[in-house]
Amino acid sequence: MSYNLLKGKRGIIFGALDENSIAWKTAERAHEEGAEFVLTNAPVALRMGTINTLAEKTNSQVIPADATNVEDLENLIEKAQEILGGKLDFVLHSIGMSINVRKGKHYTDQNYDWTHKGLDVSAMSFHKLMQTLYKKDAMNEWGSIVALTYMAAQRVFPDYNDMADNKAYLESVARSFGYFFGKDKKVRVNTISQSPTPTSAGQGVKGFTGFMNYAEKMSPLGNATALECADYTLTLFSDLTKKVTLQNLFHDGGFSNMGVSQELMEAMEE
Amino acid sequence: MSYNLLKGKRGIIFGALDENSIAWKTAERAHEEGAEFVLTNAPVALRMGTINTLAEKTNSQVIPADATNVEDLENLIEKAQEILGGKLDFVLHSIGMSINVRKGKHYTDQNYDWTHKGLDVSAMSFHKLMQTLYKKDAMNEWGSIVALTYMAAQRVFPDYNDMADNKAYLESVARSFGYFFGKDKKVRVNTISQSPTPTSAGQGVKGFTGFMNYAEKMSPLGNATALECADYTLTLFSDLTKKVTLQNLFHDGGFSNMGVSQELMEAMEE
Amino acid sequence: MSYNLLKGKRGIIFGALDENSIAWKTAERAHEEGAEFVLTNAPVALRMGTINTLAEKTNSQVIPADATNVEDLENLIEKAQEILGGKLDFVLHSIGMSINVRKGKHYTDQNYDWTHKGLDVSAMSFHKLMQTLYKKDAMNEWGSIVALTYMAAQRVFPDYNDMADNKAYLESVARSFGYFFGKDKKVRVNTISQSPTPTSAGQGVKGFTGFMNYAEKMSPLGNATALECADYTLTLFSDLTKKVTLQNLFHDGGFSNMGVSQELMEAMEE
Amino acid sequence: MSYNLLKGKRGIIFGALDENSIAWKTAERAHEEGAEFVLTNAPVALRMGTINTLAEKTNSQVIPADATNVEDLENLIEKAQEILGGKLDFVLHSIGMSINVRKGKHYTDQNYDWTHKGLDVSAMSFHKLMQTLYKKDAMNEWGSIVALTYMAAQRVFPDYNDMADNKAYLESVARSFGYFFGKDKKVRVNTISQSPTPTSAGQGVKGFTGFMNYAEKMSPLGNATALECADYTLTLFSDLTKKVTLQNLFHDGGFSNMGVSQELMEAMEE
Repeated sequence: MSYNLLKGKRGIIFGALDENSIAWKTAERAHEEGAEFVLTNAPVALRMGTINTLAEKTNSQVIPADATNVEDLENLIEKAQEILGGKLDFVLHSIGMSINVRKGKHYTDQNYDWTHKGLDVSAMSFHKLMQTLYKKDAMNEWGSIVALTYMAAQRVFPDYNDMADNKAYLESVARSFGYFFGKDKKVRVNTISQSPTPTSAGQGVKGFTGFMNYAEKMSPLGNATALECADYTLTLFSDLTKKVTLQNLFHDGGFSNMGVSQELMEAMEE
Repeated sequence: MSYNLLKGKRGIIFGALDENSIAWKTAERAHEEGAEFVLTNAPVALRMGTINTLAEKTNSQVIPADATNVEDLENLIEKAQEILGGKLDFVLHSIGMSINVRKGKHYTDQNYDWTHKGLDVSAMSFHKLMQTLYKKDAMNEWGSIVALTYMAAQRVFPDYNDMADNKAYLESVARSFGYFFGKDKKVRVNTISQSPTPTSAGQGVKGFTGFMNYAEKMSPLGNATALECADYTLTLFSDLTKKVTLQNLFHDGGFSNMGVSQELMEAMEE
Repeated sequence: MSYNLLKGKRGIIFGALDENSIAWKTAERAHEEGAEFVLTNAPVALRMGTINTLAEKTNSQVIPADATNVEDLENLIEKAQEILGGKLDFVLHSIGMSINVRKGKHYTDQNYDWTHKGLDVSAMSFHKLMQTLYKKDAMNEWGSIVALTYMAAQRVFPDYNDMADNKAYLESVARSFGYFFGKDKKVRVNTISQSPTPTSAGQGVKGFTGFMNYAEKMSPLGNATALECADYTLTLFSDLTKKVTLQNLFHDGGFSNMGVSQELMEAMEE
Repeated sequence: MSYNLLKGKRGIIFGALDENSIAWKTAERAHEEGAEFVLTNAPVALRMGTINTLAEKTNSQVIPADATNVEDLENLIEKAQEILGGKLDFVLHSIGMSINVRKGKHYTDQNYDWTHKGLDVSAMSFHKLMQTLYKKDAMNEWGSIVALTYMAAQRVFPDYNDMADNKAYLESVARSFGYFFGKDKKVRVNTISQSPTPTSAGQGVKGFTGFMNYAEKMSPLGNATALECADYTLTLFSDLTKKVTLQNLFHDGGFSNMGVSQELMEAMEE
């Protein structure tokens, strides 16, 4: 399936670790739809993952960048424009990490150095990325910036830990910076709030499988997959959504507007 | 511009009055993207407008239907399937009318017969439409139903009068019916909350031009046009948004998440 | 416990059917806090319930009124001011009824005459009440009007049927009319979105007990009781909340902002 | 006016700088309502302000504490319980500061060291405060924790700068920690989203007076004052709101649910 929806568009895709990643699927689909892009990830993630396979498949170059490091971002944005031959039309931010989660620290027993570090990686990196793009005037008019988020920013999911607060910050940055990017550069900024997805990152959250089942039962159309999220992301990169901005868009089979489902009530009665 | 995004898809489009209508633009764009559809409107609207021009242009047939009349809806849905040669993939509900607005009755001085009638036309018609589609099993799996709405459902716009409450009801119907349509038929149901748009209907609201200017100043990307709304609607009819359901999606250049803009503050200081 | 929080205040309380009613508890507590008020309900509800017991206990008079009938509301508001000796400081709207629910009609198989009737009783009655209060200039400055609602207005609870849409309409009326009541009369208008409560009305909803258990497990502080709702309502009638208006206030032990709870996950795993 | 609403209750109040502070007004009103409490602020704020006047007036002691320093918080919470003679019933967090704002750094040109520091002071301090209260088991059952916030957490106010993102983080912490505090300790946690208020802190925001006028014109009941905010805060500390938790409560004369007002449209037309 290809519509040439992104023909002639240039972008940067953050966060493709392995073939389970949403960013990976987005890169594959963006390639099919005619886009050219640069892939990037933190050096440590590049070593752990298999991004070169993706780069070959999508005819892309990989530029390492620590998204918390402004110099790395400057280098990335400069190089990407050189490689792609012009300003950018789309950017995907798919980055998140909590050391408190990794180390098993409960939300009521945080190590605040880790909390700060997780915020920097997961959320302030999005500000740094946009500030660098903005200062370098690196986006074309009617370009589109998307970050992936999760509904824990609005509602409590106890095991999501400090990532909930990080995502709330991320979504706020999308609105706050989106205003200036819209007004000054005619660029749109949105977040996609995706179903729980069995990526390598997602599976690190405690009780993930049970939670996936719960979300599946609550969602009238079931959980959205990584591939479906990639497809949805493409619509936001396309010219068909030029006036959608500052939005947090739920892509979750309907979960976000459910109070309770019949399946859930039945599962509880068993 | 055509991506063949809706190639092979069949639908029904309500509410194309004249070339300013969002439904009109959606029909034109859906045709360009390869869809086949039936046009419909209330008999009185068919006489007032110029829908035959659109029908010729998009190679479509027009079937009159009063959307508050279940028998009319049954007839429409049966005929549409006969004409198009199968079940439906998309439906657009773009219907709204307040007699209190038309007759100049203030919100604090409603004529309740008119209030009921306006609700029936503007909002309960959406339930009737979906109930008829559901009972007749007229939608294909992964089909998409969209209704147009306005942000007065969430926030106060004093001149919008009882249409605010009608739109709140409409959006609730989208969620409530969307659950059953999703679970039982794998069909998604969403509403698009569009910028103020200078359609023939929109212009009937008191002080519309001043309000358009205000919204333009508040929106970082400016107001969304009818054509842009058509484009956005197509993404929701496409296969790229299969897991988006029960959502109210703002298509408004960012207005919905603005508290105040610099332009507005400057306009007030003048 | 009494703080004299409503000393010298006069009001009207709709919807006290029996001692399980939130309105009943509100009347008892308002009386303890020093308020004087008139009780009202529809003639049929007056026959079914035990409101005279409450009237004696709170030293109140009962004035029958069908809340869908503007003449009845006019009579009620005039009589109430005569009895109480002045304009009103507070009004509680606690009215809801769906014939589709009562008759067991599924949401996808509505009888639209019943849908209209349910809307009229449950939601348009709130507009009629406020329009009558407004036209008669019956509220004191800084008075407070409250209606009870339920979160089905925002999210899907499948068994709540068309009451979901009625509550969405009711909440919209609170905002829309609240603007004019605030600006013109300095009166605040809010809705309280209460936990599922085992009132005589609530228990009519299918699967109510199972649902109560679910909500209890999801709410960090457990479900809110009718008495607790009465207490909360008093704060909104008091002089301590003068600038709270147009709000929909969740009173639900935290349910509304939960995505999932540990108790629920554990209950599902059993 | 006194209702003895907080008779016998003990608490800690953060952030009373001078008599314009919301925290100052809250302390005065809490004292009138029978509460006993400890006042606290950062050492630098204690030197700049006039808190001793408040301490005398309310018969309170002042304990300095840097709210970003866990040891200071531990000391504060221990001492407060010693002084007051038992566990705490209420805590008010009214702390916010952005170095980027102070130093005139635009949102698109942040100094990230300052961004981190502002977040630590304005938002992570709330987590640190609650974590310390929780670990020390310092709150009585049905106690109440409130933090003050601003609507920039939901919508764009361009001059609010990085405080918008800080407030989004703060509100998320209220929900996330509120779940555990509710479930484990039966303590409620809420935020109050207040009108723009001419406190010493508020007035530091660029264009504050023009913005106050705008908000006044948009709010059907006008802006809420510091004293009115104090009154509202008391209701949340009282026993009348025991099941309100995880909420962000707008106290703003209706601003938050306005799309546009007649006054604003008229001001623009002049």
